[in-house]
Amino acid sequence: MSRACPVPLCGCIDVHTHVVPHDFPAYLGHRIGAAWPSMREAQPCHRHVVISGKVYRTVSNQAWDTEVRRADMDRLGVARQVLSPMPELLSYWLDPADGAALARYLNETLAQMCAGAPGRFSALGAAPLQDMDLAIREMEFAVGTLGLAGVEVGSNVGGVPIGDPRFWPFFEAAQACNAAVFVHPLRPAGMERLVGPASLEQIVAFPGEIGLAAASIVTGGLMARFPRLRIALSHGGGAIQTVLPRLQHAWECQPALREAMPVAPLDAARSLWFDNLLYSATAIRALVETVGSDRVMIGTDYPFAIMDADPARRVETLGFSEGEQEALRWKNALAWLGVE
Amino acid sequence: MSRACPVPLCGCIDVHTHVVPHDFPAYLGHRIGAAWPSMREAQPCHRHVVISGKVYRTVSNQAWDTEVRRADMDRLGVARQVLSPMPELLSYWLDPADGAALARYLNETLAQMCAGAPGRFSALGAAPLQDMDLAIREMEFAVGTLGLAGVEVGSNVGGVPIGDPRFWPFFEAAQACNAAVFVHPLRPAGMERLVGPASLEQIVAFPGEIGLAAASIVTGGLMARFPRLRIALSHGGGAIQTVLPRLQHAWECQPALREAMPVAPLDAARSLWFDNLLYSATAIRALVETVGSDRVMIGTDYPFAIMDADPARRVETLGFSEGEQEALRWKNALAWLGVE
Repeated sequence: MSRACPVPLCGCIDVHTHVVPHDFPAYLGHRIGAAWPSMREAQPCHRHVVISGKVYRTVSNQAWDTEVRRADMDRLGVARQVLSPMPELLSYWLDPADGAALARYLNETLAQMCAGAPGRFSALGAAPLQDMDLAIREMEFAVGTLGLAGVEVGSNVGGVPIGDPRFWPFFEAAQACNAAVFVHPLRPAGMERLVGPASLEQIVAFPGEIGLAAASIVTGGLMARFPRLRIALSHGGGAIQTVLPRLQHAWECQPALREAMPVAPLDAARSLWFDNLLYSATAIRALVETVGSDRVMIGTDYPFAIMDADPARRVETLGFSEGEQEALRWKNALAWLGVE
Repeated sequence: MSRACPVPLCGCIDVHTHVVPHDFPAYLGHRIGAAWPSMREAQPCHRHVVISGKVYRTVSNQAWDTEVRRADMDRLGVARQVLSPMPELLSYWLDPADGAALARYLNETLAQMCAGAPGRFSALGAAPLQDMDLAIREMEFAVGTLGLAGVEVGSNVGGVPIGDPRFWPFFEAAQACNAAVFVHPLRPAGMERLVGPASLEQIVAFPGEIGLAAASIVTGGLMARFPRLRIALSHGGGAIQTVLPRLQHAWECQPALREAMPVAPLDAARSLWFDNLLYSATAIRALVETVGSDRVMIGTDYPFAIMDADPARRVETLGFSEGEQEALRWKNALAWLGVE
């Protein structure tokens, strides 16, 4: 390690970084036209991710090469990255058996990346949530056998929001195997409301989608059901920031809502974690004011184009006390990951 | 007038209040099963709004009776209310001719309410946006002949976001006839992501929907096209608060986005107005920090159940200077309404 202090005491933990493997195994399933990913050479140090015959995205070697990542981390003051698959790879639209095979490959890749640089990486695996039993089995394997810290899940699975009671068995198992859960937008709602280039899917629709996912967790009562679950929302929970006070207000004045939600919305939200990927000191401060300085962590979207480029400075410039900064930089992340 | 100071110098202007007429004319169109509204007696001082044979909402006489409203306004320190139809009444799903007839009835009702109490009310009419020509004609009549301050429009019309270039002719006419435009959520995106009671449509999906509408205005280039337009977003623009910094960040680092949007997203947003219906000092302060203290106005959703109950105190407790408070209380509203 190139930094003077031991990890993570003086560095940042970046909980929101993505991985694309250098290669995928050949498709061995039996569905013609399955959206199984493959990689193809691109410009030097880059490869195309090809899904359903189209280039989905072109990624650099930062996406798979831990040496390159470690050099970037040293430059950025990031002591540890939490690795998770590029969300499109969660592939909930594949046949369950294919989804399970892809998740297994991703999880083994993530485990190898962690093993190659002890202390520098934690990882969140994939689980094929298109099939509850396979998803639970894969999560238990990823956490119990491979030693991953938890799982990344989409904000919805085939359009069903992640807070829907249909997913309770999965979250019950996540609590039981002590898995941290990272919720990331995927195939967002509101696509029909966008006016502009295709990149607005990620730029404009993701914050709304993760907000709806967070709201579904709050209104669906997931945290009341499994109070020891450790769930983090990406993108600062997006729109949940503006939904929460409204939901709390309605909960206080509408008996029907209080009956449906035994825990106050603000209290439920304060039992979740959030990354700080909001690109604005104003927005991050508002998030911290709303959910508490013990609930917000650094997240950058490394290594993608939209990444927040200077995470350490982002925290420094918020005007928080040294103790709060330390919480944001790494302490909250360790608590969420379940690391002492 | 019952208050010591002249309006609006020492009171608040509430730009977000809704009206339901005491009655509707009988349906004279020729569509069987048209969603034409009617009213039915309910408990004392209340009436049911019936649409398509079902009670859509039960409203009190606050919804139509200006005497009752004025008593409430005096109690709340509201010098002037800006009246707009209960959004469901915009009825973009009716046949164009039916929609035009309903809009005409709403606009005449609003004009009568204003005439009955000079200085206490301004009004935003309806325009049947399911037909561009009829919509423009009705807006011109409402503003030019009836003297309304402008129009209320839905966040989308039949699923098409209000910032879509298809609506440019309407906005061109709005600019030409000096109409203030109030954008309100309607039939929101993301309904399939809600987990809980039906009221979450308004509580959870509205902030996302108005955020998508605001984003469509920003990314669709409406303000660059018609720079003298005066558009206000309800519900504090909802999710736009968390979308804007992300959109600005992406705009700064993605040439394709800069090409599609000649004006920086933050600059475009700062040419809009917003009400402060966010139910949280933290969220309102963040909005003011993001768009400027000259762009935020009081909005309460009077007289509906979710209304923000104490608008004057809401502004007082934000910690702003007296000048900023004055701007939020009434100055910004007069600028948006186009009143000297």
